[in-house]
Amino acid sequence: MQQYFVHGRAPQEGLVTITDKETAKHMFSVMRLQPDDEVVLVFDDAIKRRAKVISKEDQTFELIEDLADMVELPVSVTIAVGFPKGDKLEFLAQKVTELGASQLQAFPADWSVVKWDSKKLTKKAEKLEKIALGAAEQSKRNRIPAVQLFETKTAFLQQLTNFDHVLIAYEEAAKQGETSQLVQALSKMQTGDNLLFVFGPEGGISSAEIDQLTALGAKTVGLGPRILRAETAPLYALSAVSYAVELKGN
Amino acid sequence: MQQYFVHGRAPQEGLVTITDKETAKHMFSVMRLQPDDEVVLVFDDAIKRRAKVISKEDQTFELIEDLADMVELPVSVTIAVGFPKGDKLEFLAQKVTELGASQLQAFPADWSVVKWDSKKLTKKAEKLEKIALGAAEQSKRNRIPAVQLFETKTAFLQQLTNFDHVLIAYEEAAKQGETSQLVQALSKMQTGDNLLFVFGPEGGISSAEIDQLTALGAKTVGLGPRILRAETAPLYALSAVSYAVELKGN
Repeated sequence: MQQYFVHGRAPQEGLVTITDKETAKHMFSVMRLQPDDEVVLVFDDAIKRRAKVISKEDQTFELIEDLADMVELPVSVTIAVGFPKGDKLEFLAQKVTELGASQLQAFPADWSVVKWDSKKLTKKAEKLEKIALGAAEQSKRNRIPAVQLFETKTAFLQQLTNFDHVLIAYEEAAKQGETSQLVQALSKMQTGDNLLFVFGPEGGISSAEIDQLTALGAKTVGLGPRILRAETAPLYALSAVSYAVELKGN
Repeated sequence: MQQYFVHGRAPQEGLVTITDKETAKHMFSVMRLQPDDEVVLVFDDAIKRRAKVISKEDQTFELIEDLADMVELPVSVTIAVGFPKGDKLEFLAQKVTELGASQLQAFPADWSVVKWDSKKLTKKAEKLEKIALGAAEQSKRNRIPAVQLFETKTAFLQQLTNFDHVLIAYEEAAKQGETSQLVQALSKMQTGDNLLFVFGPEGGISSAEIDQLTALGAKTVGLGPRILRAETAPLYALSAVSYAVELKGN
Protein backbone atom coordinates (compact mmCIF):
# COMPACT_ATOMS: atom_id res chain seq x y z
CA MET A 1 0.00 0.00 0.00
CA GLN A 2 1.27 3.47 -0.87
CA GLN A 3 2.67 5.36 2.11
CA TYR A 4 2.69 9.13 2.68
CA PHE A 5 4.13 11.32 5.40
CA VAL A 6 1.87 14.03 6.81
CA HIS A 7 3.25 16.90 8.90
CA GLY A 8 1.76 17.36 12.35
CA ARG A 9 -0.17 15.16 14.72
CA ALA A 10 -2.82 12.63 13.83
CA PRO A 11 -6.28 13.98 14.72
CA GLN A 12 -8.02 12.25 17.64
CA GLU A 13 -11.28 12.35 15.70
CA GLY A 14 -12.62 13.63 12.40
CA LEU A 15 -11.02 13.62 8.99
CA VAL A 16 -7.46 14.32 7.88
CA THR A 17 -7.08 16.97 5.19
CA ILE A 18 -3.96 16.81 3.07
CA THR A 19 -2.72 20.38 2.75
CA ASP A 20 0.73 19.71 1.28
CA LYS A 21 0.46 20.36 -2.45
CA GLU A 22 3.12 17.86 -3.55
CA THR A 23 1.59 15.09 -1.46
CA ALA A 24 -1.94 15.82 -2.69
CA LYS A 25 -0.73 15.94 -6.28
CA HIS A 26 0.93 12.54 -5.96
CA MET A 27 -2.15 11.06 -4.32
CA PHE A 28 -4.86 12.34 -6.62
CA SER A 29 -3.11 13.20 -9.91
CA VAL A 30 -0.30 10.64 -10.11
CA MET A 31 -1.83 7.70 -8.23
CA ARG A 32 -5.42 8.77 -9.06
CA LEU A 33 -6.79 7.71 -5.70
CA GLN A 34 -10.56 7.33 -5.58
CA PRO A 35 -12.98 7.39 -2.62
CA ASP A 36 -12.53 4.26 -0.44
CA ASP A 37 -8.98 3.66 -1.78
CA GLU A 38 -6.59 3.02 1.08
CA VAL A 39 -3.13 4.36 1.85
CA VAL A 40 -0.81 4.46 4.85
CA LEU A 41 -0.39 7.88 6.48
CA VAL A 42 2.51 8.55 8.86
CA PHE A 43 2.35 11.61 11.12
CA ASP A 44 5.08 13.07 13.29
CA ASP A 45 4.57 10.37 15.95
CA ALA A 46 6.02 7.82 13.47
CA ILE A 47 3.02 5.52 13.78
CA LYS A 48 1.73 4.16 10.49
CA ARG A 49 -2.03 4.44 10.09
CA ARG A 50 -4.26 2.85 7.51
CA ALA A 51 -6.45 5.56 5.99
CA LYS A 52 -9.27 5.69 3.43
CA VAL A 53 -10.05 8.41 0.89
CA ILE A 54 -13.28 10.21 1.74
CA SER A 55 -13.18 13.04 -0.81
CA LYS A 56 -10.84 13.71 -3.71
CA GLU A 57 -12.03 17.31 -4.00
CA ASP A 58 -11.48 18.08 -0.30
CA GLN A 59 -8.37 15.86 -0.16
CA THR A 60 -9.70 14.18 2.98
CA PHE A 61 -9.02 10.80 4.56
CA GLU A 62 -10.56 8.85 7.39
CA LEU A 63 -8.13 7.07 9.70
CA ILE A 64 -9.01 3.38 10.03
CA GLU A 65 -6.44 1.80 12.30
CA ASP A 66 -2.93 2.06 13.69
CA LEU A 67 -0.43 -0.40 12.23
CA ALA A 68 2.18 -2.11 14.40
CA ASP A 69 4.81 -1.83 11.69
CA MET A 70 7.97 -0.14 13.08
CA VAL A 71 11.07 -0.36 10.92
CA GLU A 72 13.36 2.24 12.48
CA LEU A 73 16.82 1.12 13.59
CA PRO A 74 17.01 0.57 17.37
CA VAL A 75 20.04 2.87 17.39
CA SER A 76 19.53 6.30 15.86
CA VAL A 77 22.30 6.72 13.26
CA THR A 78 23.41 10.06 11.83
CA ILE A 79 25.63 9.85 8.76
CA ALA A 80 27.95 12.86 8.39
CA VAL A 81 30.10 13.25 5.27
CA GLY A 82 32.64 15.81 4.17
CA PHE A 83 31.12 17.69 1.21
CA PRO A 84 31.63 15.29 -1.72
CA LYS A 85 31.78 16.18 -5.39
CA GLY A 86 28.96 16.04 -7.93
CA ASP A 87 25.62 14.57 -6.93
CA LYS A 88 26.95 12.15 -4.35
CA LEU A 89 24.98 13.79 -1.55
CA GLU A 90 21.82 13.20 -3.55
CA PHE A 91 22.80 9.55 -3.98
CA LEU A 92 23.51 9.31 -0.25
CA ALA A 93 20.22 10.98 0.71
CA GLN A 94 18.37 8.22 -1.09
CA LYS A 95 20.50 5.29 0.01
CA VAL A 96 21.03 6.17 3.69
CA THR A 97 17.27 6.67 3.98
CA GLU A 98 16.64 3.19 2.61
CA LEU A 99 19.22 1.77 4.99
CA GLY A 100 17.67 3.38 8.05
CA ALA A 101 19.66 6.53 8.89
CA SER A 102 17.83 9.01 11.07
CA GLN A 103 19.84 11.97 9.82
CA LEU A 104 22.18 12.97 7.01
CA GLN A 105 24.71 15.68 7.72
CA ALA A 106 27.46 17.17 5.57
CA PHE A 107 30.22 19.61 6.36
CA PRO A 108 33.18 21.29 4.61
CA ALA A 109 36.05 18.89 5.31
CA ASP A 110 39.72 19.72 4.79
CA TRP A 111 39.82 17.69 1.61
CA SER A 112 36.43 18.73 0.24
CA VAL A 113 36.93 20.12 -3.25
CA VAL A 114 33.57 21.86 -3.57
CA LYS A 115 32.89 25.19 -1.89
CA TRP A 116 29.24 25.83 -1.10
CA ASP A 117 27.98 29.14 0.30
CA SER A 118 24.92 29.45 2.52
CA LYS A 119 22.58 30.14 -0.40
CA LYS A 120 23.76 27.03 -2.24
CA LEU A 121 23.53 25.01 0.98
CA THR A 122 19.92 26.05 1.55
CA LYS A 123 18.95 24.97 -1.96
CA LYS A 124 20.94 21.76 -1.65
CA ALA A 125 19.31 20.91 1.68
CA GLU A 126 15.84 21.42 0.20
CA LYS A 127 16.67 19.07 -2.65
CA LEU A 128 18.10 16.44 -0.29
CA GLU A 129 15.04 16.67 1.96
CA LYS A 130 12.78 15.92 -1.00
CA ILE A 131 14.89 12.92 -1.94
CA ALA A 132 14.86 11.66 1.65
CA LEU A 133 11.08 12.08 1.79
CA GLY A 134 10.57 10.07 -1.40
CA ALA A 135 12.97 7.35 -0.30
CA ALA A 136 11.38 7.18 3.16
CA GLU A 137 7.97 6.64 1.57
CA GLN A 138 9.31 3.99 -0.77
CA SER A 139 11.25 2.09 1.87
CA LYS A 140 8.29 2.37 4.26
CA ARG A 141 10.17 4.19 6.98
CA ASN A 142 8.37 5.48 10.06
CA ARG A 143 10.38 8.69 10.01
CA ILE A 144 11.87 10.93 7.35
CA PRO A 145 15.58 11.40 7.97
CA ALA A 146 16.53 14.99 8.76
CA VAL A 147 19.08 16.75 6.57
CA GLN A 148 21.57 19.21 8.00
CA LEU A 149 24.32 20.89 6.00
CA PHE A 150 26.91 22.84 7.98
CA GLU A 151 28.51 25.95 6.53
CA THR A 152 31.57 25.60 8.78
CA LYS A 153 33.40 22.68 10.30
CA THR A 154 33.30 24.46 13.65
CA ALA A 155 29.50 24.37 13.64
CA PHE A 156 29.65 20.67 12.76
CA LEU A 157 32.08 19.92 15.58
CA GLN A 158 30.05 21.91 18.12
CA GLN A 159 27.11 19.54 17.90
CA LEU A 160 29.16 16.38 18.52
CA THR A 161 28.15 16.44 22.19
CA ASN A 162 24.57 15.66 21.10
CA PHE A 163 25.63 12.08 20.37
CA ASP A 164 26.26 9.12 22.66
CA HIS A 165 28.84 7.65 20.28
CA VAL A 166 30.92 9.19 17.50
CA LEU A 167 32.71 6.87 15.08
CA ILE A 168 35.04 7.90 12.25
CA ALA A 169 35.37 5.62 9.24
CA TYR A 170 39.10 5.30 8.80
CA GLU A 171 41.47 2.68 7.50
CA GLU A 172 42.73 0.85 10.51
CA ALA A 173 45.61 -1.53 10.74
CA ALA A 174 43.74 -4.45 12.31
CA LYS A 175 46.14 -6.97 13.74
CA GLN A 176 45.72 -10.67 13.11
CA GLY A 177 43.02 -12.08 15.36
CA GLU A 178 42.18 -8.69 16.85
CA THR A 179 38.49 -7.89 17.19
CA SER A 180 37.72 -5.02 14.85
CA GLN A 181 37.09 -1.59 16.33
CA LEU A 182 33.71 -1.49 14.60
CA VAL A 183 32.60 -4.75 16.20
CA GLN A 184 33.78 -3.49 19.60
CA ALA A 185 31.99 -0.17 19.14
CA LEU A 186 28.72 -1.72 17.96
CA SER A 187 28.70 -4.22 20.82
CA LYS A 188 28.34 -1.26 23.20
CA MET A 189 25.30 0.26 21.49
CA GLN A 190 22.03 0.19 23.37
CA THR A 191 18.51 0.72 22.10
CA GLY A 192 17.79 4.43 21.90
CA ASP A 193 21.44 5.48 21.65
CA ASN A 194 22.47 8.21 19.22
CA LEU A 195 25.36 7.31 16.97
CA LEU A 196 27.18 9.76 14.70
CA PHE A 197 29.22 8.12 11.93
CA VAL A 198 31.70 10.49 10.24
CA PHE A 199 33.08 9.98 6.71
CA GLY A 200 35.60 11.97 4.73
CA PRO A 201 35.03 13.29 1.21
CA GLU A 202 36.73 11.62 -1.80
CA GLY A 203 40.20 12.50 -0.54
CA GLY A 204 39.46 11.02 2.86
CA ILE A 205 39.49 12.59 6.27
CA SER A 206 42.61 14.59 7.18
CA SER A 207 44.79 13.63 10.13
CA ALA A 208 44.06 17.07 11.65
CA GLU A 209 40.36 16.20 11.49
CA ILE A 210 40.99 12.81 13.08
CA ASP A 211 42.78 14.63 15.92
CA GLN A 212 39.97 17.18 16.32
CA LEU A 213 37.33 14.47 16.37
CA THR A 214 39.14 12.08 18.68
CA ALA A 215 39.84 14.96 21.07
CA LEU A 216 36.05 15.27 21.26
CA GLY A 217 35.66 11.58 22.07
CA ALA A 218 35.30 10.05 18.60
CA LYS A 219 36.77 6.62 17.81
CA THR A 220 38.21 5.47 14.49
CA VAL A 221 36.82 2.25 13.03
CA GLY A 222 37.67 0.31 9.88
CA LEU A 223 35.09 -0.99 7.41
CA GLY A 224 36.95 -4.04 6.16
CA PRO A 225 40.19 -4.20 4.16
CA ARG A 226 38.96 -2.88 0.81
CA ILE A 227 39.11 0.78 -0.19
CA LEU A 228 35.53 2.05 -0.34
CA ARG A 229 34.48 5.16 -2.21
CA ALA A 230 33.19 8.12 -0.24
CA GLU A 231 29.61 7.32 -1.25
CA THR A 232 29.86 3.58 -0.53
CA ALA A 233 31.38 3.62 2.96
CA PRO A 234 28.21 5.01 4.65
CA LEU A 235 26.16 2.20 3.09
CA TYR A 236 28.53 -0.40 4.54
CA ALA A 237 28.33 1.29 7.94
CA LEU A 238 24.52 1.38 8.04
CA SER A 239 24.28 -2.23 6.86
CA ALA A 240 26.74 -3.29 9.56
CA VAL A 241 24.76 -1.41 12.23
CA SER A 242 21.55 -3.07 11.05
CA TYR A 243 23.18 -6.50 10.98
CA ALA A 244 24.82 -6.09 14.40
CA VAL A 245 22.06 -4.32 16.30
CA GLU A 246 18.88 -5.34 14.50
CA LEU A 247 19.48 -8.85 13.17
CA LYS A 248 22.06 -10.14 15.57
CA GLY A 249 21.19 -8.17 18.72
CA ASN A 250 24.85 -6.96 19.07
CA MET B 1 50.17 3.63 -5.56
CA GLN B 2 48.22 3.00 -8.77
CA GLN B 3 47.22 -0.63 -9.24
CA TYR B 4 46.76 -2.52 -12.51
CA PHE B 5 45.62 -6.03 -13.33
CA VAL B 6 47.71 -7.97 -15.85
CA HIS B 7 46.39 -11.13 -17.52
CA GLY B 8 48.50 -14.25 -17.14
CA ARG B 9 51.20 -15.38 -14.75
CA ALA B 10 53.94 -13.25 -13.28
CA PRO B 11 57.29 -14.03 -14.95
CA GLN B 12 59.84 -15.82 -12.77
CA GLU B 13 62.55 -13.61 -14.19
CA GLY B 14 62.97 -10.83 -16.75
CA LEU B 15 60.69 -7.91 -17.51
CA VAL B 16 56.92 -7.68 -17.76
CA THR B 17 55.60 -6.22 -21.00
CA ILE B 18 52.14 -4.65 -20.87
CA THR B 19 50.35 -5.84 -24.01
CA ASP B 20 46.81 -4.76 -23.13
CA LYS B 21 46.17 -1.49 -25.00
CA GLU B 22 43.74 0.03 -22.50
CA THR B 23 46.08 -0.67 -19.59
CA ALA B 24 49.13 0.70 -21.41
CA LYS B 25 47.17 3.80 -22.43
CA HIS B 26 46.13 4.47 -18.85
CA MET B 27 49.68 3.95 -17.60
CA PHE B 28 51.60 6.01 -20.12
CA SER B 29 49.10 8.48 -21.61
CA VAL B 30 46.72 9.16 -18.72
CA MET B 31 49.05 8.69 -15.72
CA ARG B 32 52.17 9.63 -17.75
CA LEU B 33 54.37 7.09 -15.98
CA GLN B 34 58.13 7.69 -16.38
CA PRO B 35 61.07 5.30 -15.95
CA ASP B 36 61.54 4.36 -12.27
CA ASP B 37 57.93 5.28 -11.42
CA GLU B 38 56.30 2.51 -9.38
CA VAL B 39 52.92 0.83 -9.62
CA VAL B 40 51.31 -2.32 -8.26
CA LEU B 41 50.74 -5.12 -10.77
CA VAL B 42 48.34 -7.97 -10.00
CA PHE B 43 48.53 -11.15 -12.11
CA ASP B 44 46.13 -14.08 -12.15
CA ASP B 45 47.58 -15.47 -8.92
CA ALA B 46 46.04 -12.48 -7.07
CA ILE B 47 49.34 -11.50 -5.48
CA LYS B 48 50.09 -7.78 -5.58
CA ARG B 49 53.60 -6.97 -6.77
CA ARG B 50 55.46 -3.68 -6.63
CA ALA B 51 56.85 -2.92 -10.08
CA LYS B 52 59.01 -0.20 -11.63
CA VAL B 53 58.81 1.26 -15.13
CA ILE B 54 61.86 0.31 -17.22
CA SER B 55 60.80 1.63 -20.63
CA LYS B 56 57.81 3.72 -21.70
CA GLU B 57 58.37 2.86 -25.36
CA ASP B 58 58.52 -0.89 -24.75
CA GLN B 59 55.88 -0.68 -22.00
CA THR B 60 58.06 -2.79 -19.70
CA PHE B 61 58.26 -3.13 -15.94
CA GLU B 62 60.64 -4.79 -13.54
CA LEU B 63 59.05 -6.65 -10.63
CA ILE B 64 60.51 -5.50 -7.31
CA GLU B 65 58.73 -7.41 -4.57
CA ASP B 66 55.58 -9.28 -3.61
CA LEU B 67 53.22 -7.42 -1.29
CA ALA B 68 51.43 -9.20 1.54
CA ASP B 69 48.25 -7.18 0.98
CA MET B 70 45.27 -9.54 0.56
CA VAL B 71 41.83 -7.93 0.73
CA GLU B 72 39.56 -10.65 -0.68
CA LEU B 73 36.60 -11.77 1.44
CA PRO B 74 37.32 -15.10 3.22
CA VAL B 75 34.05 -16.38 1.75
CA SER B 76 33.71 -16.14 -2.01
CA VAL B 77 30.42 -14.29 -2.66
CA THR B 78 28.54 -14.34 -5.97
CA ILE B 79 25.79 -11.75 -6.31
CA ALA B 80 23.02 -12.83 -8.69
CA VAL B 81 20.22 -10.42 -9.61
CA GLY B 82 17.15 -10.69 -11.79
CA PHE B 83 17.71 -8.40 -14.80
CA PRO B 84 16.96 -4.94 -13.43
CA LYS B 85 15.90 -1.87 -15.41
CA GLY B 86 18.12 0.92 -16.70
CA ASP B 87 21.76 1.01 -15.74
CA LYS B 88 21.38 -0.69 -12.39
CA LEU B 89 23.64 -3.58 -13.40
CA GLU B 90 26.36 -1.04 -14.19
CA PHE B 91 25.86 0.51 -10.76
CA LEU B 92 26.00 -2.94 -9.17
CA ALA B 93 29.14 -3.96 -11.10
CA GLN B 94 30.96 -1.03 -9.53
CA LYS B 95 29.56 -1.31 -6.02
CA VAL B 96 29.70 -5.09 -5.52
CA THR B 97 33.32 -4.98 -6.69
CA GLU B 98 34.16 -2.36 -4.07
CA LEU B 99 32.37 -4.43 -1.44
CA GLY B 100 34.28 -7.60 -2.25
CA ALA B 101 32.07 -9.79 -4.46
CA SER B 102 33.93 -12.43 -6.43
CA GLN B 103 31.28 -12.64 -9.13
CA LEU B 104 28.28 -10.75 -10.48
CA GLN B 105 25.57 -12.75 -12.21
CA ALA B 106 22.25 -11.70 -13.69
CA PHE B 107 19.38 -13.71 -15.11
CA PRO B 108 15.90 -13.13 -16.58
CA ALA B 109 13.64 -13.34 -13.54
CA ASP B 110 9.85 -13.69 -13.67
CA TRP B 111 9.37 -10.05 -12.83
CA SER B 112 12.22 -8.67 -14.93
CA VAL B 113 10.79 -6.01 -17.23
CA VAL B 114 13.70 -5.85 -19.66
CA LYS B 115 14.23 -8.48 -22.35
CA TRP B 116 17.82 -8.90 -23.45
CA ASP B 117 18.83 -11.19 -26.33
CA SER B 118 22.22 -12.91 -26.53
CA LYS B 119 23.76 -10.11 -28.62
CA LYS B 120 22.70 -7.48 -26.09
CA LEU B 121 23.91 -9.70 -23.25
CA THR B 122 27.37 -10.07 -24.78
CA LYS B 123 27.72 -6.29 -25.13
CA LYS B 124 26.33 -5.72 -21.64
CA ALA B 125 28.74 -8.26 -20.14
CA GLU B 126 31.72 -6.56 -21.81
CA LYS B 127 30.65 -3.21 -20.40
CA LEU B 128 30.16 -4.66 -16.92
CA GLU B 129 33.56 -6.37 -17.05
CA LYS B 130 35.22 -3.05 -17.79
CA ILE B 131 33.44 -1.40 -14.88
CA ALA B 132 34.41 -4.26 -12.57
CA LEU B 133 38.03 -3.99 -13.70
CA GLY B 134 38.16 -0.24 -12.99
CA ALA B 135 36.46 -0.64 -9.64
CA ALA B 136 38.76 -3.54 -8.69
CA GLU B 137 41.80 -1.38 -9.43
CA GLN B 138 40.39 1.54 -7.48
CA SER B 139 39.36 -0.50 -4.44
CA LYS B 140 42.70 -2.36 -4.55
CA ARG B 141 41.18 -5.80 -4.95
CA ASN B 142 43.38 -8.85 -5.52
CA ARG B 143 40.96 -10.25 -8.08
CA ILE B 144 38.62 -8.82 -10.68
CA PRO B 145 35.09 -10.10 -10.12
CA ALA B 146 33.80 -12.26 -12.97
CA VAL B 147 30.61 -11.24 -14.76
CA GLN B 148 28.14 -13.82 -16.03
CA LEU B 149 24.81 -12.97 -17.65
CA PHE B 150 22.43 -15.88 -18.25
CA GLU B 151 20.12 -15.88 -21.23
CA THR B 152 17.69 -18.26 -19.54
CA LYS B 153 16.69 -18.90 -15.97
CA THR B 154 17.24 -22.61 -16.56
CA ALA B 155 20.92 -22.01 -17.27
CA PHE B 156 21.14 -19.91 -14.13
CA LEU B 157 19.49 -22.60 -12.00
CA GLN B 158 21.70 -25.36 -13.44
CA GLN B 159 24.86 -23.87 -11.95
CA LEU B 160 23.47 -23.60 -8.40
CA THR B 161 25.21 -26.84 -7.48
CA ASN B 162 28.55 -25.05 -7.87
CA PHE B 163 27.92 -23.26 -4.58
CA ASP B 164 28.25 -24.40 -0.97
CA HIS B 165 25.46 -22.05 0.15
CA VAL B 166 22.63 -20.35 -1.73
CA LEU B 167 20.72 -17.56 0.00
CA ILE B 168 17.73 -15.65 -1.37
CA ALA B 169 17.11 -12.11 -0.16
CA TYR B 170 13.46 -12.13 0.79
CA GLU B 171 11.28 -10.34 3.29
CA GLU B 172 10.98 -12.64 6.23
CA ALA B 173 8.59 -12.42 9.10
CA ALA B 174 11.16 -12.53 11.89
CA LYS B 175 9.53 -13.29 15.20
CA GLN B 176 10.36 -11.33 18.31
CA GLY B 177 13.65 -12.49 19.78
CA GLU B 178 14.27 -14.97 16.96
CA THR B 179 17.79 -15.03 15.52
CA SER B 180 17.61 -13.80 11.96
CA GLN B 181 18.02 -16.31 9.15
CA LEU B 182 20.89 -14.26 7.76
CA VAL B 183 22.79 -14.41 11.06
CA GLN B 184 22.19 -18.15 11.26
CA ALA B 185 23.34 -18.67 7.67
CA LEU B 186 26.47 -16.54 8.02
CA SER B 187 27.46 -18.28 11.26
CA LYS B 188 27.88 -21.48 9.22
CA MET B 189 30.23 -20.00 6.61
CA GLN B 190 33.80 -21.22 6.59
CA THR B 191 36.85 -19.73 4.95
CA GLY B 192 36.95 -20.76 1.32
CA ASP B 193 33.21 -21.45 1.03
CA ASN B 194 31.31 -20.35 -2.07
CA LEU B 195 28.16 -18.38 -1.36
CA LEU B 196 25.56 -17.42 -3.95
CA PHE B 197 23.24 -14.60 -2.91
CA VAL B 198 20.14 -14.24 -5.12
CA PHE B 199 18.14 -11.00 -5.49
CA GLY B 200 14.99 -10.27 -7.44
CA PRO B 201 14.59 -7.39 -9.91
CA GLU B 202 12.56 -4.27 -8.98
CA GLY B 203 9.34 -6.26 -8.66
CA GLY B 204 11.00 -8.76 -6.33
CA ILE B 205 11.45 -12.48 -6.68
CA SER B 206 8.35 -14.49 -7.55
CA SER B 207 6.99 -17.18 -5.27
CA ALA B 208 7.51 -19.70 -8.09
CA GLU B 209 11.17 -18.72 -8.13
CA ILE B 210 11.41 -19.05 -4.35
CA ASP B 211 10.01 -22.58 -4.73
CA GLN B 212 12.44 -23.46 -7.54
CA LEU B 213 15.41 -22.13 -5.61
CA THR B 214 14.50 -23.67 -2.27
CA ALA B 215 13.91 -27.02 -3.99
CA LEU B 216 17.56 -26.74 -5.02
CA GLY B 217 18.66 -26.12 -1.43
CA ALA B 218 18.50 -22.32 -1.23
CA LYS B 219 17.40 -20.59 1.98
CA THR B 220 15.49 -17.32 2.27
CA VAL B 221 17.01 -14.63 4.48
CA GLY B 222 15.81 -11.15 5.42
CA LEU B 223 17.96 -8.02 5.27
CA GLY B 224 16.34 -6.06 8.07
CA PRO B 225 12.82 -4.62 8.24
CA ARG B 226 13.10 -1.81 5.68
CA ILE B 227 12.20 -2.25 2.01
CA LEU B 228 15.45 -2.03 0.04
CA ARG B 229 15.60 -1.26 -3.66
CA ALA B 230 16.84 -3.95 -6.03
CA GLU B 231 20.20 -2.20 -6.36
CA THR B 232 20.64 -1.56 -2.63
CA ALA B 233 19.92 -5.03 -1.22
CA PRO B 234 23.14 -6.62 -2.63
CA LEU B 235 25.21 -3.87 -0.97
CA TYR B 236 23.60 -4.62 2.39
CA ALA B 237 24.27 -8.34 1.89
CA LEU B 238 27.96 -7.90 1.04
CA SER B 239 28.47 -5.49 3.92
CA ALA B 240 26.81 -7.94 6.30
CA VAL B 241 29.02 -10.79 5.03
CA SER B 242 32.12 -8.63 5.48
CA TYR B 243 31.04 -7.58 8.96
CA ALA B 244 30.13 -11.11 10.06
CA VAL B 245 32.93 -13.08 8.45
CA GLU B 246 35.78 -10.59 8.12
CA LEU B 247 35.43 -8.20 11.06
CA LYS B 248 33.63 -10.34 13.58
CA GLY B 249 34.83 -13.80 12.62
CA ASN B 250 31.20 -15.08 12.38
